[in-house]
Amino acid sequence: MVKNNKFKKVSFIGFGLINSSLARIFKSKSLADEIMAYSRSKSTRSKIKKLNIANKITDDLRVAVKNADLIILGVPVGAMESMVKEFANDLMKGSILTDVGSIKKDIINSVMPLLPKDVSFVPGHPIAGTEKSGPEAGFEDLFKGHWCILTPTENTSKNAINKVSNMWRQAGMSVTLMDADYHDRVLAITSHIPHLVAYSIVGTVAELEDHLKTEVIKYSAGGFRDFTRIAASDPIMWRDVFLNNGDAVLEMLGRFIEDLTALQKSIRWKDGEALEELFTKTRTIRKGIISAKQD
Amino acid sequence: MVKNNKFKKVSFIGFGLINSSLARIFKSKSLADEIMAYSRSKSTRSKIKKLNIANKITDDLRVAVKNADLIILGVPVGAMESMVKEFANDLMKGSILTDVGSIKKDIINSVMPLLPKDVSFVPGHPIAGTEKSGPEAGFEDLFKGHWCILTPTENTSKNAINKVSNMWRQAGMSVTLMDADYHDRVLAITSHIPHLVAYSIVGTVAELEDHLKTEVIKYSAGGFRDFTRIAASDPIMWRDVFLNNGDAVLEMLGRFIEDLTALQKSIRWKDGEALEELFTKTRTIRKGIISAKQD
Repeated sequence: MVKNNKFKKVSFIGFGLINSSLARIFKSKSLADEIMAYSRSKSTRSKIKKLNIANKITDDLRVAVKNADLIILGVPVGAMESMVKEFANDLMKGSILTDVGSIKKDIINSVMPLLPKDVSFVPGHPIAGTEKSGPEAGFEDLFKGHWCILTPTENTSKNAINKVSNMWRQAGMSVTLMDADYHDRVLAITSHIPHLVAYSIVGTVAELEDHLKTEVIKYSAGGFRDFTRIAASDPIMWRDVFLNNGDAVLEMLGRFIEDLTALQKSIRWKDGEALEELFTKTRTIRKGIISAKQD
Repeated sequence: MVKNNKFKKVSFIGFGLINSSLARIFKSKSLADEIMAYSRSKSTRSKIKKLNIANKITDDLRVAVKNADLIILGVPVGAMESMVKEFANDLMKGSILTDVGSIKKDIINSVMPLLPKDVSFVPGHPIAGTEKSGPEAGFEDLFKGHWCILTPTENTSKNAINKVSNMWRQAGMSVTLMDADYHDRVLAITSHIPHLVAYSIVGTVAELEDHLKTEVIKYSAGGFRDFTRIAASDPIMWRDVFLNNGDAVLEMLGRFIEDLTALQKSIRWKDGEALEELFTKTRTIRKGIISAKQD
């Protein structure tokens, strides 16, 4: 049973794919009496207005968080610290701050020390998304059937964790708790490295001789086409992921480059056995994923 | 207008994803009086029988090609030479041999010298596929809206090229002619390298510590999940691609590893500008692909 603990005022800081999708759910399920949307960009604010999801729209951070009992940070990771600095002292006593950033350790380290003692911070990461960005890209079903990982610290209030967990369950997610460090390592390999590799290979194509590039674009089938979709994701958001999860990404990237170099050698030496062995082993992982959840 | 030049007997050598899909089209559009299916595997032959697509099924290559005016090689690239050697002298005068292999130069070099002068070889590559394999994975719409690249040599008969082109158009493909060398370079980057990278990264995960691997499989979202799908493709087929298109793959892989290493350095030095520049540039390539063809 999903309980409905209604919020008085929810404030969405940033209104991109994730926050605008979540706001749609707040509206359709009446999860808050008032929905406030903050965006510093004029064009985003006018898009939000057209979408008719929020009750109020502002470009003033301090106005946005005032009297809000739930504040959801949905901006690129690199922007969070300075924004929280700006509104920290305006946060209501007893309010809950949560975020939707793809990395957790750096956010905890930079945001936690800025908060008044009577505000609970529940770091969160809903693992859902598309390559699209902006308020108009959001949709209610974005989260359905996916996992949300919360990475509270020892001191995070149980009540706040429960309320945020419940919110994500209302959005259709399964919620799990994890250590922030561990989250960042897991996500480095499931999400950050695949994005980096996709960006890199599409970048390689961008630098090909013009005639070859034209053919590559024309005849791109399965493989490369999938990569270009991944590599069309929001540049600022991903820049910040790599700037703020550098350690875990570099560790996993090191392992990956080692493996790729071994594979390069197998091709050079026409070692069919080694290739076949790897290409067979990888099917097992796919089966694990398929059985864990339908695609 | 797509002309319907009907064949007397079409012989499918191998009955995996591509050939079984094409055979379905031959049947539903009556493109041949007789459909012959060859497979060396007993279990595949009994699957073909159940599918009720072919008029005849055999495990004898020479029987398969006898009196066929069209023979379609749909087996892993590494198996083609020895098979053609076995049936070359049984090919009917005036018949057309074509193939569906993902690389073209090596196939031309190994198959052409084996053929009698009065047989036309039209090397072909329908750029379509899924990660599934086997006769039951086939479906009629597999080719619809995709490109088929034919790589005839100077001496290939125009009539044979036209007939094979027409066959692929009947399957819903656009047909283009290309030099075999050039084909292999284009496909190295659009298909072979993305597959290699996907295999490699999924292989990296397969070697992670058990507890981390479990979490990675459980929480795999967008990026890694796409990679596991690509890395679930047929191991033998892909082994043969890398064994037979080594030169083009190694050239492109070299460029890719250079670019990835530069990216690694940008992350280590927290060079946000370089990251943002790349992540923005790659969106342009995606737009080119989207405007060339809908996803």
